[in-house]
Amino acid sequence: MARRLDDLQNGCRIYQDPAFFCFGIDAVLLAHFAEVRGGERALDLGTGSGVIPLIMQKDAPATASFDGLEIIPEAAEMAADSVRLNSLEGRIRIVCGDLRDLAAGRSEIKPGTYDVVTCNPPYYKTGSGRVSGEPAKAAARHELCCSLDEVAGAAAAALKSSGRFYMIHIPERLAEIFKALGGHGLEPKAMRLVHPKADKEPTMVLIEAVKGGRPGIKVGPPLIVYEADGRYTKEVLAIYGKAE
Amino acid sequence: MARRLDDLQNGCRIYQDPAFFCFGIDAVLLAHFAEVRGGERALDLGTGSGVIPLIMQKDAPATASFDGLEIIPEAAEMAADSVRLNSLEGRIRIVCGDLRDLAAGRSEIKPGTYDVVTCNPPYYKTGSGRVSGEPAKAAARHELCCSLDEVAGAAAAALKSSGRFYMIHIPERLAEIFKALGGHGLEPKAMRLVHPKADKEPTMVLIEAVKGGRPGIKVGPPLIVYEADGRYTKEVLAIYGKAE
Repeated sequence: MARRLDDLQNGCRIYQDPAFFCFGIDAVLLAHFAEVRGGERALDLGTGSGVIPLIMQKDAPATASFDGLEIIPEAAEMAADSVRLNSLEGRIRIVCGDLRDLAAGRSEIKPGTYDVVTCNPPYYKTGSGRVSGEPAKAAARHELCCSLDEVAGAAAAALKSSGRFYMIHIPERLAEIFKALGGHGLEPKAMRLVHPKADKEPTMVLIEAVKGGRPGIKVGPPLIVYEADGRYTKEVLAIYGKAE
Repeated sequence: MARRLDDLQNGCRIYQDPAFFCFGIDAVLLAHFAEVRGGERALDLGTGSGVIPLIMQKDAPATASFDGLEIIPEAAEMAADSVRLNSLEGRIRIVCGDLRDLAAGRSEIKPGTYDVVTCNPPYYKTGSGRVSGEPAKAAARHELCCSLDEVAGAAAAALKSSGRFYMIHIPERLAEIFKALGGHGLEPKAMRLVHPKADKEPTMVLIEAVKGGRPGIKVGPPLIVYEADGRYTKEVLAIYGKAE
């Protein structure tokens, strides 16, 4: 592994390995879509480099805490190093483990104890598209280590009743997403589609689901990434903390 | 009833009763979202004034035919009068009946014989919002005569294998829509959200589902109704046949 140290633009730095996996705009959008309130405990499933808790802790109340679960030992180690580098050991805990062990109670992550779960899961089924030869990259993109249904099951198991699950995924799998969530008692409550430009098809979807929530979903305005001239929109600049 | 005769702007006229129910932009958007090919048979569930087949027949190949099923006798009679007024008896058939009888084979509408089903169903559950004192208006807005699940069941029963179901509904009920479709073997394959303006939340959703289809949904660009200055967008003007 050839680590590099990147600036998260929020006062934190993060170790990443380009040969391994680097975070993209999806992680940034999810971290800003998710909300963690004072005193709440949040869990990030498949945290990779820990980018989501590292971004989220900045805007969350000081009494909120974050756990990140990662199956690949080298990634979990690098994430833990980033936590130490930023002196955030009291706020973010990185756990190496398999999210599929969670529902069975075989994990260090205790079921039914989280107010918030976040996840930027692999988007593609195995068998669709080229699977990377690099195991960490492959696991981040393809459902090698966990299926959509297993992600929803782990989120439901981790959450307290009325806890909130935030996920980003691809619109193509929307029907499967709703089915997986519903199958685990997670009711979709909010959604935004992310479009590269205002007149283009969406490439990502942000979803909030509530454990045991009542039916009724609030679909927000389209989240547009680029203006017609190729500059970031005001909304995305604000998310990146670069608004004028 | 006090009928009036309106121009559909496509060469047809339609009887409507304002005290009863008049069609809105949702019916127009659905009629243009749905596609009927040569030789295909289409069924409109809860056709009301017959507006959807009356719009759709104009752009459909001459070999396509349309049936409209309506539970309220006065509405069915008025729709049949509109069909006669436009000399479309050979192309559109109006049937008075209950869509809930369809799956049980107790209807004049024969199960498994349609290539396309369309429906602009009541959007609201009974118990949400004020129910109109006028029975036809009430049935068009609230699920008095059929639930979302019964609509999906009737559509699935009417369709041939691989037949296409087109529906417009409200985004708030998206999770229930996916569940109802999935529960009857209708796989969502295409979707567009309809936003009053580009930066506003969507108020309607257009969905295409295929009986026995494979998972994977294509979400289109946002369908915007009004420009910032309040004029119709080009896309909506084109749908209304008023594009420059």
